[in-house]
Amino acid sequence: MNKFEKAQQILQEINADGWLIVVNEDNDIHSRYLLGVGSHALHAILIAADGNHKVFPVVMEANMVKNSLKKKGVDAEVIPFNSLSEFVEKLKNFVSKPKIALDFGENIFQENTTSYADYIPFGTYSALKKLLPTTEFISAAPIIYELRSVKSAEELEDLRNVCKATIELLETVPDFAKIGMTEREVMAKLEYEYAKVGKPAFPAIVGTGEHSADPHHNSSNEKIKPGPLLIDTGMQIDEMCSDITWTYWVGNNPSEEFKNAYNALYESKIIANKYYTDGTPSRLPAVKCREYLAEKGYDHEKLFFHGLGHALDFEAHGVGPRVSSKAPEYSILKENMVYTNEPGLYWIGKWGIRLEDDLIVGKEKCEQVTYNPKDPLVI
Amino acid sequence: MNKFEKAQQILQEINADGWLIVVNEDNDIHSRYLLGVGSHALHAILIAADGNHKVFPVVMEANMVKNSLKKKGVDAEVIPFNSLSEFVEKLKNFVSKPKIALDFGENIFQENTTSYADYIPFGTYSALKKLLPTTEFISAAPIIYELRSVKSAEELEDLRNVCKATIELLETVPDFAKIGMTEREVMAKLEYEYAKVGKPAFPAIVGTGEHSADPHHNSSNEKIKPGPLLIDTGMQIDEMCSDITWTYWVGNNPSEEFKNAYNALYESKIIANKYYTDGTPSRLPAVKCREYLAEKGYDHEKLFFHGLGHALDFEAHGVGPRVSSKAPEYSILKENMVYTNEPGLYWIGKWGIRLEDDLIVGKEKCEQVTYNPKDPLVI
Repeated sequence: MNKFEKAQQILQEINADGWLIVVNEDNDIHSRYLLGVGSHALHAILIAADGNHKVFPVVMEANMVKNSLKKKGVDAEVIPFNSLSEFVEKLKNFVSKPKIALDFGENIFQENTTSYADYIPFGTYSALKKLLPTTEFISAAPIIYELRSVKSAEELEDLRNVCKATIELLETVPDFAKIGMTEREVMAKLEYEYAKVGKPAFPAIVGTGEHSADPHHNSSNEKIKPGPLLIDTGMQIDEMCSDITWTYWVGNNPSEEFKNAYNALYESKIIANKYYTDGTPSRLPAVKCREYLAEKGYDHEKLFFHGLGHALDFEAHGVGPRVSSKAPEYSILKENMVYTNEPGLYWIGKWGIRLEDDLIVGKEKCEQVTYNPKDPLVI
Repeated sequence: MNKFEKAQQILQEINADGWLIVVNEDNDIHSRYLLGVGSHALHAILIAADGNHKVFPVVMEANMVKNSLKKKGVDAEVIPFNSLSEFVEKLKNFVSKPKIALDFGENIFQENTTSYADYIPFGTYSALKKLLPTTEFISAAPIIYELRSVKSAEELEDLRNVCKATIELLETVPDFAKIGMTEREVMAKLEYEYAKVGKPAFPAIVGTGEHSADPHHNSSNEKIKPGPLLIDTGMQIDEMCSDITWTYWVGNNPSEEFKNAYNALYESKIIANKYYTDGTPSRLPAVKCREYLAEKGYDHEKLFFHGLGHALDFEAHGVGPRVSSKAPEYSILKENMVYTNEPGLYWIGKWGIRLEDDLIVGKEKCEQVTYNPKDPLVI
């Protein structure tokens, strides 16, 4: 079943007539997710409960979109447009149905937010509302959640493949990364390899020295120096992204502080892994991980200031329950959800370590798909 | 004057109290534009008319944001938050002012659209509206337009630099691109060079054979074969993006058809260039370009099915009047706007050519910043 057919089935379940995605310049990931190709112009996609799916690309992208849908085995009518007014006219004619789902989130500032569905810009929403005054618009969050949170066998196979390729590359870092190279140069090398077969899942984080303590550091022109070198990177080949962090040691011998923190994180990750199981509250892996770090004497409230992980799918930050000690009790993991497990310890202005692996939530136990080295690799 | 100060000045001109940007996961380019660093988590930026600018990053990004603002010489208070509820509380306390600009567009489905400002998702807008019921929200379009459409001397210098680096790389393509390499491998090589000093402005389009006829082709695993090879690529080092297309010929001798189309496009580009001048209707360069192509016997309505170019700034598709034969008469070019000039001719399913250069709109004549080769480079 392709994604259009799966979404159609969900539409029938929730009694909606269609799922409409209106995109201008790459601002909704679900366009590439559905079309299989990146469209960089105004366009719309209508998945219809009755199976009469339609895609409205601009003329200059029509051939590209048609070819991609054909490759994906999607049966959808492609209706190109030449001008904004023609696009609007076509939307009006084909989309004025009683109940249409749009990509917007609800309860954005509350615990039960569906912010993962929040894409359509306010101006575009308002224009649609005016164009189709009798249509009831509902949030597409349930569709997106069902499509993306629990993975199919094919998606899991894609995950294993992309993770294997990423790990093989991380193993080669000590062969090419040298003192004096810039962080960007290391990032460039990784992304060069990705681009040959796929694409970076996100801009690689390469952090030397004190930059390793900024979890979302933007790789810079700073030269690699002795001490910790944190690399957080992932790629996408087919449907799934990898997202892996290794922390290397640059120079002769890792310091005792570094080795101790590394070992504590390595062990805490193994402990957390035990709780990535079907039916378990999604806060439990993080709670258990933090308990262990506290036992080892780390002030985790201060030093580990982010969630334990996140869902992983077509995007590096995917759709699924929050994996954090602050997640509510009712938030539950399910078999074949895919997560990162990424505890970290950071001394701001000094250095940090994060060890991040990817895993598949299992019935009794998780399938760990990637493995950080037990001892830090030395560069 | 840094961007915070410039935006503050505009706020005073339009009698608004602040410009608020609320971002979740990279969904508003103006965050990186203002902060100078990519934030990949929920955060908010308030530029205040009274100068009390504030940035609300999540704790894990606070140090990174602080350092970037310091480097940029921005005087703004950084107020980190630990949880969603803390973020919401802080927004409520600091942002409840009478009149706040948000990044949404107006008239999205009409000719005079400000879709270039349409970023804030509908769900986020609704939550803000509920949180700050007495605040009047206006569109930030006038602020964005004034900040981005006409360039400063520093931005123009950045443009010249990034264009020079991109052209130097395009000149080397015949040295490394070979028959049998995949499109992705060529893209990977280009982006490898970009990543060492900056970043790709957008995913490079490398189209061999019939792929050259899809203007927004996604580089694929297709192997380069004899015939046209279209490369549309750009990079960003500092503030400005380059965006350049060269069409090469792979194999022994370019066909007569190819050479004729190449020459016609090359000449049409020179003609269009004459009209990228201050005070000129923005449709004129495209009208004149199309007139020339028609003279040369090309059915431009059918074969050249996109606009002549677009504004170029911090993004490859930047902010400024539309440069298209369909743009309205009241839409006027101004000195120091930056544009692409990119006529193309495409025979769908066969092959296409596009020649794209970047230029600065001038008082009497434009400054052409990049130059396509007069004769196609042969690989």
